[in-house]
Amino acid sequence: MKYCSHCGSLISITVPEGDNRPRHVCTSVSCGSIHYQNPNIVAGCLIEHGDALLLCKRAIEPRYGLWTLPAGFLENGESVEEGALRETREEACADVEIMQLYTMFSLTHINQVYMMFRARLHEPLFSPGEESLEVRLFEESEIPWGELAFPVMNQTLKHYFEDRRKGEFKTHIGAVKALGEGAARRIEVQMLQGGNP
Amino acid sequence: MKYCSHCGSLISITVPEGDNRPRHVCTSVSCGSIHYQNPNIVAGCLIEHGDALLLCKRAIEPRYGLWTLPAGFLENGESVEEGALRETREEACADVEIMQLYTMFSLTHINQVYMMFRARLHEPLFSPGEESLEVRLFEESEIPWGELAFPVMNQTLKHYFEDRRKGEFKTHIGAVKALGEGAARRIEVQMLQGGNP
Repeated sequence: MKYCSHCGSLISITVPEGDNRPRHVCTSVSCGSIHYQNPNIVAGCLIEHGDALLLCKRAIEPRYGLWTLPAGFLENGESVEEGALRETREEACADVEIMQLYTMFSLTHINQVYMMFRARLHEPLFSPGEESLEVRLFEESEIPWGELAFPVMNQTLKHYFEDRRKGEFKTHIGAVKALGEGAARRIEVQMLQGGNP
Repeated sequence: MKYCSHCGSLISITVPEGDNRPRHVCTSVSCGSIHYQNPNIVAGCLIEHGDALLLCKRAIEPRYGLWTLPAGFLENGESVEEGALRETREEACADVEIMQLYTMFSLTHINQVYMMFRARLHEPLFSPGEESLEVRLFEESEIPWGELAFPVMNQTLKHYFEDRRKGEFKTHIGAVKALGEGAARRIEVQMLQGGNP
């Protein structure tokens, strides 16, 4: 952000009066708008059909060709659950029934909060949307663990199969943090609720 | 948004190629940035100390002088639970222990998603922060129902006392929708999980 989106003047990064962190502030005295930047929500569904789960092979970057659960950025005007259902329709052409909020992970290094709902596909009706190369049902033994697009999806699926074995689906809440720099960079999962990472 | 924050050119509202909704798009051919606008997360705590709950009287607009639970916009770089703890420290000067995600409400008419955690205050140590006029503990019979700042806080407290009577605290998920216009405008609560509105 270099220019003020209200008046077109230059932006400076300063701590506004009464605030305690640097913000993008308009340098024009007559405008002075403060432009806050906040995390975005990614909403999606973990979809059951019998014993199988529905995964989508990405037709877009990043992670083109890798598998993921249908999910995407929540839009203005929709609830988190509406966003999850819309993404499922867009990416997998599937209409599902949401059962519960299943995982909520804050990805603090990229300012995203993932919210995945456990959902049910009643009839096996699905097909690839524009952002998918392929959509298919996977039994547990078939999950392509090494070809999943995002670590947060690995986490969500891992919790799912553990819970299924225990016969109880809890809501799992935590943070996925990138710690360290360069070669020492590692991902750490910190769970607040619903069990170990 | 009138000007592109990347290059300072004028913005037009158009549907970008491959998209399905109007966005703020830069009119400069050499820039052409798309500026997405997405819902913000408000994170906060419903704080127990014995049988009482901690409320803050707002020292800022909107709803100056009304009571609320400590909550505020999630910042980049923090997890939802870290945001809830920070807001509690800022508004009530209290250090609490989070127990569970308690309510998640999408406020679709103002593009906000409220996430309130049930938390415990071990020692009765609190005081008004800069954004609060007063902070105090309320027994159920003392809750100032008619002087609460936001309907979403009424909802959260209502669920809390119902759950307490039942002896089980579920995670409540839903949407608070403003339907109709002008005098016919009404607020409707649609629950997805955790019971009736």
